[in-house]
Amino acid sequence: MRKWVKKATDVRKGELLDSAQALFFSKGYDATTVADIMERAGVSKGGFYHHFSAKEDLLEALAARMAAESLKRLQPVLEEPGLDAVARINAVLLQSRQLKLEDAPAIRAAFDAIFKPENIVLYHRLNRAVSQVVLPLFVDILKQGKAEGLFRIDDPVTTAEIILHLGTSTRDAVARAIEATGTPRAEEAADALDERLRQHGIATDRILGLPDGTVAFFEPGFSRAALAVSAKKAE
Amino acid sequence: MRKWVKKATDVRKGELLDSAQALFFSKGYDATTVADIMERAGVSKGGFYHHFSAKEDLLEALAARMAAESLKRLQPVLEEPGLDAVARINAVLLQSRQLKLEDAPAIRAAFDAIFKPENIVLYHRLNRAVSQVVLPLFVDILKQGKAEGLFRIDDPVTTAEIILHLGTSTRDAVARAIEATGTPRAEEAADALDERLRQHGIATDRILGLPDGTVAFFEPGFSRAALAVSAKKAE
Repeated sequence: MRKWVKKATDVRKGELLDSAQALFFSKGYDATTVADIMERAGVSKGGFYHHFSAKEDLLEALAARMAAESLKRLQPVLEEPGLDAVARINAVLLQSRQLKLEDAPAIRAAFDAIFKPENIVLYHRLNRAVSQVVLPLFVDILKQGKAEGLFRIDDPVTTAEIILHLGTSTRDAVARAIEATGTPRAEEAADALDERLRQHGIATDRILGLPDGTVAFFEPGFSRAALAVSAKKAE
Repeated sequence: MRKWVKKATDVRKGELLDSAQALFFSKGYDATTVADIMERAGVSKGGFYHHFSAKEDLLEALAARMAAESLKRLQPVLEEPGLDAVARINAVLLQSRQLKLEDAPAIRAAFDAIFKPENIVLYHRLNRAVSQVVLPLFVDILKQGKAEGLFRIDDPVTTAEIILHLGTSTRDAVARAIEATGTPRAEEAADALDERLRQHGIATDRILGLPDGTVAFFEPGFSRAALAVSAKKAE
């Protein structure tokens, strides 16, 4: 009986997340209410608050679930034998960008909200949740690169934490690019974001002891494509 | 008349901050209430909420004011002619640590709260406020080092932002060391914090294009001294 109850509440939690995802992706995060999510999932107030205390919790849980799903889709690249650690990082980054572009309109509807000034807390919560999912795999790649003599690093875990943390330093540039979408400042903001991503790549290279320009966080045209897809959707 | 009113409200804001500082330093942040602060400053509820919407706002404003005051005390080192950029950074870091040790019990009473898990938002708010105060001076030092050919960097502003941001990656190690104070895990947590600060220094070196171990974020004994001073106070 115990087990059955446990399973039932887990299922309900998954259904709440599925409903939140569908609504955040279609209507957008801001336009979705907790009442909408409960109604769609067919879950009572009590059932909802058993699992989540606010809409923010759902977005955080959704980000962690999507990160875990992305890792599953990236599994072939993460396990492909012939790749050295540098090639593996760049293959992972390239595929992540492709996944993001495919889902760009839905992702932006759900997650653009975290780049608003009033949601900086939520941004950090999501970043932390996603980092926890990604960390073990990133540590494995750093261990590989250290063993191959490619990365000049002491402790793969600390280095992985530092680099994942560094990702949050691009937040303001992303926020400005999103805010400028569809305005005369859009081009300038997209250029600034690209430059910031390039600098972020160089900082990562150096922390790993690699030549500048090795790790490709920046790809010409990606920021514009990710921003434009959604601009078209908004028309 | 207008000017006089403006001046009066600025004075009141300063008095609220002075009172908050005195109470946070003596009783600690958590034990101080907004009512305590209003009473000490002799300011009404209306007067308080004209300037601040919560106790957190006072801590943020206090952190920014203390950062600006520290910069004033560091002015001689910041302007001393004979120092190259590396010597200047290390002199600033050394003096900052000395100032922190002098005020350690008061600083910890006021600011340990931001390292609690429930206050992560407040931590990021304070970090952002302090970074804005420190950024222009740090950019100046990076420009100097670039001109001297010591720092291998493109854009001093972006690099300064990245390095200041990187500081927040030490948060969890600081939090664990504070939490472990006075427990059997204290030694281990202090060692882990030292190692984390050393790694943070190396990441900074590399982002600036310097040999590992150049920028001295880590100083043997500092973490223990900063943690111990307060432990003694708590006895």
